[in-house]
Amino acid sequence: MGKRIVVIGGVAAGPKAAARARRLDPSAEITIVEKDEILSYAGCGLPYYISGMVHDRKELIATPVGVLRDPQFFAKVKDIKILNKTVATSVDRPAKEVEVQSVETGETQRLPYDKLVIATGAETLEPPIPGKDLKNVVRLKRLEDADRFREYMRDSSCPQVVIVGGGLIGIEMAEAVRECGSGVTIVEMLPHILPMLDADMTCLVEKHLRQVGVTVATGTRVERFEGDEHGRLQSVVTSKGSFVAPLALLSIGLRPNVELAKKAGLLIGPAGGIAVNQYLQTSDPDIYAAGDCAEKSCFVRGTSCFLPLGSVANKEGRVAGSNVVGRADRFPGVAGATALKVFDWNVGRAGLSVEQAAMLGVPVVSMTVSAPDKPHYYPGNQPVILKLIAEKANRRLIGIQGVGPGEVMKRIDVAITAMAGRMTVDDVAQLDLSYAPPYSEAMDVLIHCANSLRNKLDGLLMGVSCTELQASRQAGEQFMLLDVRTPDEHHAGRIPGSTLIPLGALRARASEVPQDKRVVAYCKTSLRAWEASRILEGQGHHNVEILEGGFVAWPFETEQSA
Amino acid sequence: MGKRIVVIGGVAAGPKAAARARRLDPSAEITIVEKDEILSYAGCGLPYYISGMVHDRKELIATPVGVLRDPQFFAKVKDIKILNKTVATSVDRPAKEVEVQSVETGETQRLPYDKLVIATGAETLEPPIPGKDLKNVVRLKRLEDADRFREYMRDSSCPQVVIVGGGLIGIEMAEAVRECGSGVTIVEMLPHILPMLDADMTCLVEKHLRQVGVTVATGTRVERFEGDEHGRLQSVVTSKGSFVAPLALLSIGLRPNVELAKKAGLLIGPAGGIAVNQYLQTSDPDIYAAGDCAEKSCFVRGTSCFLPLGSVANKEGRVAGSNVVGRADRFPGVAGATALKVFDWNVGRAGLSVEQAAMLGVPVVSMTVSAPDKPHYYPGNQPVILKLIAEKANRRLIGIQGVGPGEVMKRIDVAITAMAGRMTVDDVAQLDLSYAPPYSEAMDVLIHCANSLRNKLDGLLMGVSCTELQASRQAGEQFMLLDVRTPDEHHAGRIPGSTLIPLGALRARASEVPQDKRVVAYCKTSLRAWEASRILEGQGHHNVEILEGGFVAWPFETEQSA
Repeated sequence: MGKRIVVIGGVAAGPKAAARARRLDPSAEITIVEKDEILSYAGCGLPYYISGMVHDRKELIATPVGVLRDPQFFAKVKDIKILNKTVATSVDRPAKEVEVQSVETGETQRLPYDKLVIATGAETLEPPIPGKDLKNVVRLKRLEDADRFREYMRDSSCPQVVIVGGGLIGIEMAEAVRECGSGVTIVEMLPHILPMLDADMTCLVEKHLRQVGVTVATGTRVERFEGDEHGRLQSVVTSKGSFVAPLALLSIGLRPNVELAKKAGLLIGPAGGIAVNQYLQTSDPDIYAAGDCAEKSCFVRGTSCFLPLGSVANKEGRVAGSNVVGRADRFPGVAGATALKVFDWNVGRAGLSVEQAAMLGVPVVSMTVSAPDKPHYYPGNQPVILKLIAEKANRRLIGIQGVGPGEVMKRIDVAITAMAGRMTVDDVAQLDLSYAPPYSEAMDVLIHCANSLRNKLDGLLMGVSCTELQASRQAGEQFMLLDVRTPDEHHAGRIPGSTLIPLGALRARASEVPQDKRVVAYCKTSLRAWEASRILEGQGHHNVEILEGGFVAWPFETEQSA
Repeated sequence: MGKRIVVIGGVAAGPKAAARARRLDPSAEITIVEKDEILSYAGCGLPYYISGMVHDRKELIATPVGVLRDPQFFAKVKDIKILNKTVATSVDRPAKEVEVQSVETGETQRLPYDKLVIATGAETLEPPIPGKDLKNVVRLKRLEDADRFREYMRDSSCPQVVIVGGGLIGIEMAEAVRECGSGVTIVEMLPHILPMLDADMTCLVEKHLRQVGVTVATGTRVERFEGDEHGRLQSVVTSKGSFVAPLALLSIGLRPNVELAKKAGLLIGPAGGIAVNQYLQTSDPDIYAAGDCAEKSCFVRGTSCFLPLGSVANKEGRVAGSNVVGRADRFPGVAGATALKVFDWNVGRAGLSVEQAAMLGVPVVSMTVSAPDKPHYYPGNQPVILKLIAEKANRRLIGIQGVGPGEVMKRIDVAITAMAGRMTVDDVAQLDLSYAPPYSEAMDVLIHCANSLRNKLDGLLMGVSCTELQASRQAGEQFMLLDVRTPDEHHAGRIPGSTLIPLGALRARASEVPQDKRVVAYCKTSLRAWEASRILEGQGHHNVEILEGGFVAWPFETEQSA
């Protein structure tokens, strides 16, 4: 008789583990237990299904050639037994049996296992907000939720949707809702959306969202959902006023679904997931956990985290599937990566943010630059605003953030790989990345950012972030804001209170720059400001900072000449 | 008095070195000597200028905000003295002086230096072909060459252009010429264009070029250029016939321009460049070399190479510029990367090819896969065909090649970074790359390729490349070519001689597959073929190979049902 492998969870990590185990062990008896009917669907595609970009629901549940991944498919192609519409109710570890119950009939049975894989995924967080159970206050987790959302949008010809929660799903859904022609308001309790980004970067994303017509209400708490006499949502009452809307999405976050594991006495990690070692073994060596329900370790600093991502779930599923049939594959941990399309902007990050590093007590130095993703002469080039974060003590790259209409994700992925290789920013600066004008500048924005950060670490460059500068301005601090662009650029748009000395005139006019007070220089991207700071340094000004990222990365108020 | 720094060469590495030195040392006296008039121009942009994608010549010689990088710009902004239209004729190392001569007046002068940077670039190779000096047989190196090419194209309303040489410039120019509406023939002496790619990948690029209407004549030697009575080109006579064309581009390659360095007695490396150490110091510690003229070392295996790239030149220029003013920056070597847009395909590679590894005697295992760059349900997804090459002994990644309409370069850059970090394919397979449907599949094509290569290294998968399979077919070898796709896919297009057993039926029909002869399974991408090989393996067939990359990556003849 073959090895008995039971997999609990049939969405991402579970089917992957089962399929991998099957490929390695043709004689194993493999069973997947899944509480819902639909298996192995593309959960990450739900917002695109709602927006209509993905026309056919079937595309999310079929293979690329259109074969439905249903129990028959698993039986015929994979020789894997599917128990769907079946809940795993308990794990009897001494007996090595899982008790399962049919959702439809209530019948129970016990499934003996030699190895068990728990892939129970994540569930949506439910905030204690009055009215959250009104009709038209929806969550988005399962394919059926997406069907319902589409239905509500169509039925109510919904002029406004309120999205509660400015995280990944909230923002992806903001775009989906706009694509459907409705207005959208994002309500976020924290001071900024996307808390995995530092405030300087988030401000840029918030500005972009507002530019494309999304209302972004940050620092705003939902007090209650108010309904009509039919129990349908009418308005969302917040700490900053009411928003009338016939439809609201609750997406304040997810948490690992670990009830079964807890009940079975398995160890839970500090981030709330099932504790696993590098082989994805739980505290019971015959039980593995993979996907959203399993605790993650970020390889950058070894911190525990919760990171519900289809990419990680698939990789972990493969590792668990290898190991249940006797291999010893390892998963070295996550990069803490986030990738997000925000309308026509690309937003990505990985590793630690400056704010996270501060919470961990890790001294860091960061640098933000902006540059086109391709040469300025190549048509279609678009700006990228990139921030790199290095550990001060050893110059190791420990974080990256990138936003903008340009190609961001290539740079994020290179940085992830560099962090996995424990590279310093000096190493990153010398990476011989591929180059041709259709793909990058000769000095790619990532290389440029790494070099700027090296300059900063070497004491050659003093930078100030847009949020720091704005705080200084709002505090009424006295300093010279030196615009070194051309007069045309200056007149077309500038930070209020700027003094213009074009770079070409600066060597001659350096005496106009005070040496006894703070000076912050800027230009379009701050490349000329960097040149300016070196020119002034050469003439005895040791007080010149540059605005990191320049005017392109300035998210606050501007003025222009009449 | 400040340190005297002389830089010979004003295109890429030279100006970068000078600018970096200036930023670090405000008191240095810095001079750039350049034989041409135009400085610091975007040489890589020439094909796009010829095609008309870059409308304005000025964009190639100006800063992103339109300031011309002329001698006045260098003087005012950079405080760098420019001697353009001036040739450096010799270096007197004992006296530490460079002798230079004005191209216009013939006047000479001697420039004393404390540190010298040689950045003399590369020059085009001139083949000994009769008639190569005819009018309308052009090279493409300088901006003036591009001007001339544009003029010829316009004047002759050129129906056909022959491009001699199927390297990077040849292929970029093929696209530029087609954009202008002319026909184009690429004549390449070697069996394939783009010799930095393995034959299986090149065949795909050649197929794509033919599909977009380019004539690709490989294994074809140019015998002579024939002109009319005005000395204008009429036809290009090759070993495989004549091509009538009023315009031909000679682009058989470049070589480092090392005449001056040689004359000065500096050491030359095995690849023909000026020998340098990691600090880019030549055999004379007061003389640095940077850019195309300097020998490169590929960090993957330490091999010497010649690699004329703007990206490398800029990085090297920065290192040389830092070091001439007393720093100790290092350049760790190149990745041997090539990036190339071939009409609507993206082509990239880095590290060693299988063919290069064989020449070096390094045993390797390679794997080719094809997959969409984004999920199949996400609109606009496009295939990528990716090949990874690992050292057999230690599983280290030592090469990557990628082609296709999908996003290739991100995967190339990740692999470059992984190679710089000396990662194994196991490390690469576990990289937690950024993920969201607009950017990649949950299992990115690179991760998928790395996993497939691991399967191969682990003896779980036997693969055959398209070129190997084609050679077997042409040799009349007997084997079963097993198509495991759906009947619809099979009828729409298949490799001639295929037997259809859809994957879903294979477990039941495994006995139809012979155990005593070679079996090669394929599907669209070979993911189902991999599944098939494991199913058959489980039923005692140990003879099943899969066609790497599948039907998507099959560049040879196909047939379809009537």
